[in-house]
Amino acid sequence: MRDKDSSRPAPWPGPPSLTDALPMTTDLADALAAASADTGGRYDAAGLQELLEGVVAAPAALDDREWMELAVPGATEAQAKRLRAAKAAVASARRPAGPKPAERLAALRGVLARLRLDAYVVPHADEHQGEYLPARAERLAWLTGFTGSAGLAVVTAERAAIFIDGRYTIQAQQQTDPALWERRHLHQEPHEAWLAEALPKGGRAGYDPRLVTVGWVEKARKAVEAAGGTLVAVEENPIDTLWTDQPPAPISPTIVQALDVAGQDAREKRAELAEALRRDRLDAVVLSAPESVAWLLNLRGADVPHTPLPLSFAVLHADGLVDLFIDRRKLVPGVDTHLGNEVAIQPPASLGQALEELGRAGKAVRIDAGSASAWMQDRLKGARVDVGADPCALPRARKNAVELEGTREAHRRDAAAVSRFLAWLSREAPSGALDEAGAAAKLLEFRIATGALRDLSFDTISAAGPNAALPHYRFSAESNRRIEPGNVYLVDSGGQYRDGTTDITRTIIVGSPTEEMRRNFTLVLKGHIAISTARFPKGTTGSQIDAFARRPLWEHGLDYDHGTGHGVGSYLSVHEGPARIAKTPNTIALEPGMILSNEPGYYAAGGYGIRTETLVVVQPCEALSDETRTFYEFETITFAPIDLALVDAALLTPDERAWLDAYHAKVRDIVGPQLEGDDRAWLEQATRPVG
Amino acid sequence: MRDKDSSRPAPWPGPPSLTDALPMTTDLADALAAASADTGGRYDAAGLQELLEGVVAAPAALDDREWMELAVPGATEAQAKRLRAAKAAVASARRPAGPKPAERLAALRGVLARLRLDAYVVPHADEHQGEYLPARAERLAWLTGFTGSAGLAVVTAERAAIFIDGRYTIQAQQQTDPALWERRHLHQEPHEAWLAEALPKGGRAGYDPRLVTVGWVEKARKAVEAAGGTLVAVEENPIDTLWTDQPPAPISPTIVQALDVAGQDAREKRAELAEALRRDRLDAVVLSAPESVAWLLNLRGADVPHTPLPLSFAVLHADGLVDLFIDRRKLVPGVDTHLGNEVAIQPPASLGQALEELGRAGKAVRIDAGSASAWMQDRLKGARVDVGADPCALPRARKNAVELEGTREAHRRDAAAVSRFLAWLSREAPSGALDEAGAAAKLLEFRIATGALRDLSFDTISAAGPNAALPHYRFSAESNRRIEPGNVYLVDSGGQYRDGTTDITRTIIVGSPTEEMRRNFTLVLKGHIAISTARFPKGTTGSQIDAFARRPLWEHGLDYDHGTGHGVGSYLSVHEGPARIAKTPNTIALEPGMILSNEPGYYAAGGYGIRTETLVVVQPCEALSDETRTFYEFETITFAPIDLALVDAALLTPDERAWLDAYHAKVRDIVGPQLEGDDRAWLEQATRPVG
Repeated sequence: MRDKDSSRPAPWPGPPSLTDALPMTTDLADALAAASADTGGRYDAAGLQELLEGVVAAPAALDDREWMELAVPGATEAQAKRLRAAKAAVASARRPAGPKPAERLAALRGVLARLRLDAYVVPHADEHQGEYLPARAERLAWLTGFTGSAGLAVVTAERAAIFIDGRYTIQAQQQTDPALWERRHLHQEPHEAWLAEALPKGGRAGYDPRLVTVGWVEKARKAVEAAGGTLVAVEENPIDTLWTDQPPAPISPTIVQALDVAGQDAREKRAELAEALRRDRLDAVVLSAPESVAWLLNLRGADVPHTPLPLSFAVLHADGLVDLFIDRRKLVPGVDTHLGNEVAIQPPASLGQALEELGRAGKAVRIDAGSASAWMQDRLKGARVDVGADPCALPRARKNAVELEGTREAHRRDAAAVSRFLAWLSREAPSGALDEAGAAAKLLEFRIATGALRDLSFDTISAAGPNAALPHYRFSAESNRRIEPGNVYLVDSGGQYRDGTTDITRTIIVGSPTEEMRRNFTLVLKGHIAISTARFPKGTTGSQIDAFARRPLWEHGLDYDHGTGHGVGSYLSVHEGPARIAKTPNTIALEPGMILSNEPGYYAAGGYGIRTETLVVVQPCEALSDETRTFYEFETITFAPIDLALVDAALLTPDERAWLDAYHAKVRDIVGPQLEGDDRAWLEQATRPVG
Repeated sequence: MRDKDSSRPAPWPGPPSLTDALPMTTDLADALAAASADTGGRYDAAGLQELLEGVVAAPAALDDREWMELAVPGATEAQAKRLRAAKAAVASARRPAGPKPAERLAALRGVLARLRLDAYVVPHADEHQGEYLPARAERLAWLTGFTGSAGLAVVTAERAAIFIDGRYTIQAQQQTDPALWERRHLHQEPHEAWLAEALPKGGRAGYDPRLVTVGWVEKARKAVEAAGGTLVAVEENPIDTLWTDQPPAPISPTIVQALDVAGQDAREKRAELAEALRRDRLDAVVLSAPESVAWLLNLRGADVPHTPLPLSFAVLHADGLVDLFIDRRKLVPGVDTHLGNEVAIQPPASLGQALEELGRAGKAVRIDAGSASAWMQDRLKGARVDVGADPCALPRARKNAVELEGTREAHRRDAAAVSRFLAWLSREAPSGALDEAGAAAKLLEFRIATGALRDLSFDTISAAGPNAALPHYRFSAESNRRIEPGNVYLVDSGGQYRDGTTDITRTIIVGSPTEEMRRNFTLVLKGHIAISTARFPKGTTGSQIDAFARRPLWEHGLDYDHGTGHGVGSYLSVHEGPARIAKTPNTIALEPGMILSNEPGYYAAGGYGIRTETLVVVQPCEALSDETRTFYEFETITFAPIDLALVDAALLTPDERAWLDAYHAKVRDIVGPQLEGDDRAWLEQATRPVG
């Protein structure tokens, strides 16, 4: 899928959950009493209700039994039934709703007046600056009605503006009241400047320090102070005081990512990182990115959609000990033992106190520039705070041999599901009866049929005709389009498997392409091949090679407005730093073990869209390396046919034709044995040599 | 020539000056008295002596009469003779020499003890962080003996270290005493860390705030304080107190760069920049880069070698008024009038006071992150100091139509000189009698014969055989090598003309090349062509396209350890920011009018070196631009044959062969009419089509 910098996907509602089909228990108390009796004294009715409210606030999982481990480990079918009934009752219980949508802005202004604030900033962010927000962090949507995945609002007594990017222009128009909200461009019209201008002279502008980075505060403070105002950290979020039915923090099962897929013991990871801290003369690092906590401690979870992580914080000390700030109720049996006694489990609410202690002791503490909140820096008063890089980011990106072998296996499995889908599509699409939503559902079905799917790795992009020209398109009930003959159909999707995370885009022509479509598809393919075949010296960054993918398009005056590749996790985030292949300058060198996407594209507005995406792994290039030099190359690990009906072989060089044929031969080898009958025959045809 | 980031050339002693040949006047007083009588009361003997000391401290110019304008405008031959005699007398006068080289470190330690400093940092830098230092700023050389163009020393009571880069390993060994100086790598062993380690607990480390940037102080302070020490700005430079015969600031004629070459009135430039300041809510900007002052006010000078600028500072105010801090004695008659009454000429010593006034008034003041000294920030106490980009850098880089036409003319002229040299070389080199120094002198002769040369734009790199494998090579009496059959000969050189600055590298085989030489020369050429033919959208930076030049080499496991291109000024610095084509991330987009070098290379250590360099201008690409998109391309403006004996045409694609033939056809068109006889015949042969 395309990079989060330009396209944070909107939250995915999740696959249909069994609970939706259950009869409602009208008597909440009865249901809770019945189920709590099964917990062996672990939860009384009130405790179980709280737990289940957290479970309801987490995304629904494909496997509806996993969450039960938190209440009744190894529940019998009868116990499971009672737990489901209790969860359904909790889900349907209503809490006081607070102000209605149209009144929320006025209500917020009332709170601001009480707090003597002249402005307030509402970002689309949680305490981790994460890609996917838990429901309780959707404050921007609560206040403005806008449900997009990126945005920010600024409110003063007189004015209010919502800042959104080009993807969301229309959606914001539909969802927000123009009488209340000015609409501005998130990047082209910096909100700090708007804030500075809208703030009355000498005014106080408030922000929630937990929801912004240290860097944001510096920038905003500069703008506000230049305009004669003051920027004020407000500990209690004014929206939370109004939003009476705000969901609680999500509760999903935190499980162990075992050594056979993680490949390195958590103890060893801690020791290595602790040594690096000592080398850097640091006493501790605050891990604010939950991916880092998950990676370091070999934990996984399901607190947010598509990224299998538990929301949590941790402090790693230079002696290798860890304080893990996580809701204990999330831990399935056995996680305690796995963590061992060098990891102290602390209540999330005690994080502030722990940081204050580091501050009082004058410790040297690293916080992560990307995910640490300004609140952390405030709490660390007295410490020598080093705003730098998350030390987990680089080792997490350099997958070990076990992770790579797992990822390859996940990709072989996923390749068969995608190929079955493409074969099915080749049979069904010509009728013109399919639509985007139906195709996506079918693709999910093929992935579920692998028996190993845990979640999609992001919302499937299933886009026909002009919809495919929107690189950030997500179908909805209104936009859902028929896939018709003559259409280009673009499908960008991926799966989360215990052994790896996949992400693949294929572009298909239904019927016959125009000459322009073939030429542009072939230009995109040339760029794709240019990345795939690149060999480069150690030290090379993704920004240095990004233009290899663009040059064939540039020669025709074309380009695409997104990155060429993002890092991909190992059963973790499908968008993972720190390396990228993109125009944006990046100083992180590509290193062996890093998994990246290779996804050039082309988008003809109102017409069609093209993207070809595979994942690649950085590998040593033995042929060009010796004692004096180290060269790297890419191993392609995604296997599914590239639509030859869209390839104009005359535009390919002999080397490029050879690459395409060799790639398809490999697809046949890997996917062929996993297919049968018509699918197998289709594969043979789809991977025929172009010579 | 290659980029300054990796190769600051050593100061060039300049072409032989006529003064060297004059008989010495033994009686200094007589000579000064005689010459001062010609100044019409402008200078008495003492004043003239001071002036001439400054003139002597400036590099010698090709035209020995220009400096006389400062003392006796329009001097007669007799007056000129007296002035020359006075200058020679001043040059040969001796001042007390201070401690001998071997005693200087001990003497410095004595001063440090008096100042209660436990360490002191001596950078190779002047007050402008310039590429070329005036003689008085060569404190590192005075202290250590090391005369390289980049380096830094740190001295404590017990230890002393000199930090140098790979180019200077041998030179530093030869020039510095190992009993006194530890030798460290400038980039791989950060001097801040060494300082922090060598500093006694609680110690005070001093630095001269005029010679370091704000960024350096931040970094060094962090390191020193982490080690429990204090970093102390020391206003008076301890070396200056010891260096009794330190030269004064250079005095060279400051002249007007007239409108027919500058292309834009200085008043207009000031107005545009002042408007930008107001837009950015700034009250003033301090121009610390003398190139910026020269560009803004359409002035040129000769205070340092090869870059025709007067050393000066300026403050541009938001109302368009300028305070120019320059020694009035440098101004030739007419400069006052040119500057007009909106530019106030201030004594250089009053800069500190002017900054303090801005500070006291609480002004918002921009200083340039690259060239502003920490001293400036200190003086600006009370101001809102914005450490950012020099606002002249971008408009200076985007040459206007007049500058571009001037530059093209300078390149046509220079192309003929270089081609005559290459023709001469093709006749003379096979004998094996030439050497590097002789060839460089001959090339200078051809450039002087154009009648328009003002200076070389940098020290000529004239390198034969293994010397060419050192990308930063400068020949010296010891290294000077014969150019022998079988040698690759590399010549990188450029001229300063009133209408433009040139920079060209050609690599020639004397006799027959090996297969490896031909292959690698051709790979470099492929990279050169890939840059030359690149078309790219508006917004593209040089770091994005740098790898186009490297990919052909990378495919064979080869690379070169320098940038692909640097900006070039308009009769100004041959190394000009802010755009570059290099691996190093750079956020400055390539924009029309920017002149850059295109100079990939390959260096076989101990064997041979290859570099092919032309200058290119960023131009709109009409063919690919319309109302929805803007594409750019490069116009190549350097014309001289590329040695076909080193080209393996079989390795070139048809498009690359067509490029080479079209380039050579253009060389014939432009250079042909400027050559005669044998030279002309040689050119026909050297530019024959490869088909």
